[in-house]
Amino acid sequence: MAATRKDSVVILIHCKDRKGIVARVSGFIHDFGGNILDSDHHTDEETNDFLMRMEFSTEGLQIPPSEIPAAFAPIAKIFDMRYEVHSSSHRLRVGMLVSKQDHCLADLLQRHKRDELCIDVPVIVSNHDTCASWAELFKIPFAVYPVTKETKPQQEKQVIAQLKDHRVELVVMARYMQILSADFLAHIGCPVINIHHSFLPAFIGANPYRQAYERGVKIIGATAHYATQDLDEGPIIEQDVIRVGHRDTVDDLVRKGRDLEEIVLARAVRRHIEHRVLVYGKKTVVFD
Amino acid sequence: MAATRKDSVVILIHCKDRKGIVARVSGFIHDFGGNILDSDHHTDEETNDFLMRMEFSTEGLQIPPSEIPAAFAPIAKIFDMRYEVHSSSHRLRVGMLVSKQDHCLADLLQRHKRDELCIDVPVIVSNHDTCASWAELFKIPFAVYPVTKETKPQQEKQVIAQLKDHRVELVVMARYMQILSADFLAHIGCPVINIHHSFLPAFIGANPYRQAYERGVKIIGATAHYATQDLDEGPIIEQDVIRVGHRDTVDDLVRKGRDLEEIVLARAVRRHIEHRVLVYGKKTVVFD
Amino acid sequence: MAATRKDSVVILIHCKDRKGIVARVSGFIHDFGGNILDSDHHTDEETNDFLMRMEFSTEGLQIPPSEIPAAFAPIAKIFDMRYEVHSSSHRLRVGMLVSKQDHCLADLLQRHKRDELCIDVPVIVSNHDTCASWAELFKIPFAVYPVTKETKPQQEKQVIAQLKDHRVELVVMARYMQILSADFLAHIGCPVINIHHSFLPAFIGANPYRQAYERGVKIIGATAHYATQDLDEGPIIEQDVIRVGHRDTVDDLVRKGRDLEEIVLARAVRRHIEHRVLVYGKKTVVFD
Amino acid sequence: MAATRKDSVVILIHCKDRKGIVARVSGFIHDFGGNILDSDHHTDEETNDFLMRMEFSTEGLQIPPSEIPAAFAPIAKIFDMRYEVHSSSHRLRVGMLVSKQDHCLADLLQRHKRDELCIDVPVIVSNHDTCASWAELFKIPFAVYPVTKETKPQQEKQVIAQLKDHRVELVVMARYMQILSADFLAHIGCPVINIHHSFLPAFIGANPYRQAYERGVKIIGATAHYATQDLDEGPIIEQDVIRVGHRDTVDDLVRKGRDLEEIVLARAVRRHIEHRVLVYGKKTVVFD
Repeated sequence: MAATRKDSVVILIHCKDRKGIVARVSGFIHDFGGNILDSDHHTDEETNDFLMRMEFSTEGLQIPPSEIPAAFAPIAKIFDMRYEVHSSSHRLRVGMLVSKQDHCLADLLQRHKRDELCIDVPVIVSNHDTCASWAELFKIPFAVYPVTKETKPQQEKQVIAQLKDHRVELVVMARYMQILSADFLAHIGCPVINIHHSFLPAFIGANPYRQAYERGVKIIGATAHYATQDLDEGPIIEQDVIRVGHRDTVDDLVRKGRDLEEIVLARAVRRHIEHRVLVYGKKTVVFD
Repeated sequence: MAATRKDSVVILIHCKDRKGIVARVSGFIHDFGGNILDSDHHTDEETNDFLMRMEFSTEGLQIPPSEIPAAFAPIAKIFDMRYEVHSSSHRLRVGMLVSKQDHCLADLLQRHKRDELCIDVPVIVSNHDTCASWAELFKIPFAVYPVTKETKPQQEKQVIAQLKDHRVELVVMARYMQILSADFLAHIGCPVINIHHSFLPAFIGANPYRQAYERGVKIIGATAHYATQDLDEGPIIEQDVIRVGHRDTVDDLVRKGRDLEEIVLARAVRRHIEHRVLVYGKKTVVFD
Repeated sequence: MAATRKDSVVILIHCKDRKGIVARVSGFIHDFGGNILDSDHHTDEETNDFLMRMEFSTEGLQIPPSEIPAAFAPIAKIFDMRYEVHSSSHRLRVGMLVSKQDHCLADLLQRHKRDELCIDVPVIVSNHDTCASWAELFKIPFAVYPVTKETKPQQEKQVIAQLKDHRVELVVMARYMQILSADFLAHIGCPVINIHHSFLPAFIGANPYRQAYERGVKIIGATAHYATQDLDEGPIIEQDVIRVGHRDTVDDLVRKGRDLEEIVLARAVRRHIEHRVLVYGKKTVVFD
Repeated sequence: MAATRKDSVVILIHCKDRKGIVARVSGFIHDFGGNILDSDHHTDEETNDFLMRMEFSTEGLQIPPSEIPAAFAPIAKIFDMRYEVHSSSHRLRVGMLVSKQDHCLADLLQRHKRDELCIDVPVIVSNHDTCASWAELFKIPFAVYPVTKETKPQQEKQVIAQLKDHRVELVVMARYMQILSADFLAHIGCPVINIHHSFLPAFIGANPYRQAYERGVKIIGATAHYATQDLDEGPIIEQDVIRVGHRDTVDDLVRKGRDLEEIVLARAVRRHIEHRVLVYGKKTVVFD
């Protein structure tokens, strides 16, 4: 049987590269009695960005995890770091957005149920009531806010309020078929992960499976990315692909695509909640 | 040990779908004593196009392969078919176009050498002399026509002449870094296969690996397609992909891409020379 | 939108190769007014086995599908064929066997629900009551027969009776963690598909993920096959793989494996119910 | 254009896990003015093995790379470490073993030529003269030692002498179709990488493609591993797979397998020469 993962803390760091960062951060952890379980960093040699993830055990730690950010602040100041500290004992509160298609939502909830994704799901929000039975099965509050072109600004405010009421720390668009406005993204106050049903940047926009079919591609894909104001331009977290052939109709592409969407979205969510993703510029670093 | 492939004839057919085509064509082959080794067809239900490939053994055939096209003409007329007849004993004459990068050329020549690709390569044409040693190693005539913006029309005429002198039946652009003009394609008189170093339609145009790097994609690809006047819009024959990550520089993408380019181009050429590809509209049917 | 699939009939044929089979069968279909939608065949040149699948539209067919087997019998006799005739309007009755792990069952039921798999599921049988809620959600009868070493012969009789009562035409072992006895397989009277959680023939037997972990493989797989009396030796229908690394614990392998198991099993079931699989010897032909 | 890789030093470490290793090693590097470019480590929680790779720039380093091992010795002693220090300016001397099939050899030499693999190849040794032309093309000494069952011990001594004369630091079996004796492996004094033409541990032993064909698998693979006295049991460095189908003969499997063998072997060699592979027990850690 595999060893159970110990309680741990993850520290994520982004700054400009200079000598001594790894030594300084690992020294900090060691001085407080932490045992480094996993460390990874990346230097972008074109931009000189330094990005790091360190995970250390809390066993024997001589400081409560909650005090680490303050204790680390002086080091962060020296290197002008942007940093985050996360405790593995905190289950991230993830709000789900969904429309009519249920496969991504159902997949995430099942992974959640079997503790494959260590999250809490305090609320599911939709513009349709189609997925109510999944919410019921998993005993999660389900809020429906229908939307039209006219009511969109109003509806987005309701959605934001609902998510904030549930103190959501991550929003997952599990095939939510509405484009979130710049205003929504500016006010939601936490990251938003979207699943796009094409291999971005191919087939941007509407109906990507139809586009792929008409172009006669031999492979289709799906892309999970952070939602940003530039539609389909958000930093990519994960992509995957599957072969298609001339026998596949658009419906077959949609069917094969569903499997891809589920898996790609689930992998992206897993990486985010394990604090393995750092965004810089239009890109991500994913520490596997 | 695997059975050796018998001498065979391939018939490729394209027409509008009607009842009785398979029965009529297989009856034709049977009546002349042919044994069908492989048959495959596809009906595009949106466009009602019917596309078929039948391969039959010449053992016991009561008609010389060369007379099949004429004998088949009456049936073709009934169904208003476009058709081609190919004998497996004929080795297709393939002309290679190459620039400075040699990996695709070297790969194809090695496959040719070990009889993995049953073709003749009567000539290699380049705008640089970089690949001369490969031509020498495999004892293939090598013609160099340098090109500038000003001399392009003139150079293309020389290339066409050279290829036609060698009675080339297929042109393979093995990383030939020139865009063939509409005029070239109109006059070359045979299909042209190109390898594009991206997963089309993503990253159309110049420097696709640089584009992919800047977009931060997690997967890169390569695409083999027939060259048409709409650049990067030709019917796709084969595509494949490979994972990349944040540690990969543009140079790493180029390096990983080389392996993809070789394999994707070789597969496309193999399928073409086995007469497994039918073009209709902007798409292909590939009978594997 | 993709064209809807017309009502059709599939004929599956297995005999020794001789000239004229394709012509004879396609002629038969044409004579009765059928339009061939899809045809594929394979000749194993080592064994001289001929295996064929033809699908034809019933639109304009001058004979009821139910009378086709009898009408075809004389041709079958000439070529000494084993053959099956299936109508696309008949939904195959699929019985599910499951133990405690629910992911494959849940996945198949969701595909069934969204009409991705055109089947009926008249009953789910288990040796545990763990999956009862799925049966309830999808309103399918759920029968539990606990089993011990001592009660196994007795329990298998109950399972067979239950499946036969529901006139099951295919049994799917959706992670049913019992080995079916030779006796069971001899009496069940229909094909049984199993999902093995390794890339067969690697890691035969118990605990394949643990075995894979200890061997340090870089890729793990799953295999869907027909159950036969030689355990793990049944004809393979479908396999797929995923990369693993040194950071993956046995639990991670199990988690990644679940996704594989679902997808591989679903693909195998889809192919079986579309009558695309022919078994001969220890192997299958899968007509995609 | 991507940044050129700076001159660097890699330190590889293996010991039992204890607190403070990362801090101590990164502190050591920092104290001598090194800038850590890349660091990665893995703790096997079952065995408590700690394995680490750190790469640091020599720019501004206040100690010659050659003196690092001695300077590091006291730290190694504290943690009871096994360690290696490698300089990126040193090109590893790689001896090639080959038999009749040339594809893996030709592939490695071409990668070497275009500086994709930064190695020296001082000698190619074979039991046949088939590959002489490749040695000639790349101007590398080529030594032929035919072998029979009787002369094997004698021949192995000659091969070892030849490789040692060229001060080889890595031996690559590029489809060398002889089993190296335990005696050879005990005396060669450097790692040996082999490419096995199957997805180990499936199809151990002779004729794996034939075995795969007869079992009717849907995917074949290749495995690069360190050669050990237990044949086909050496620690796996890299594996990859490709789909096959019922139309593929054994010859087709061999052909598809060649592409796999080339790519898998090249990846394994690249990882080894970049000092990314650590062996412990029967397994490897590969730091990508």
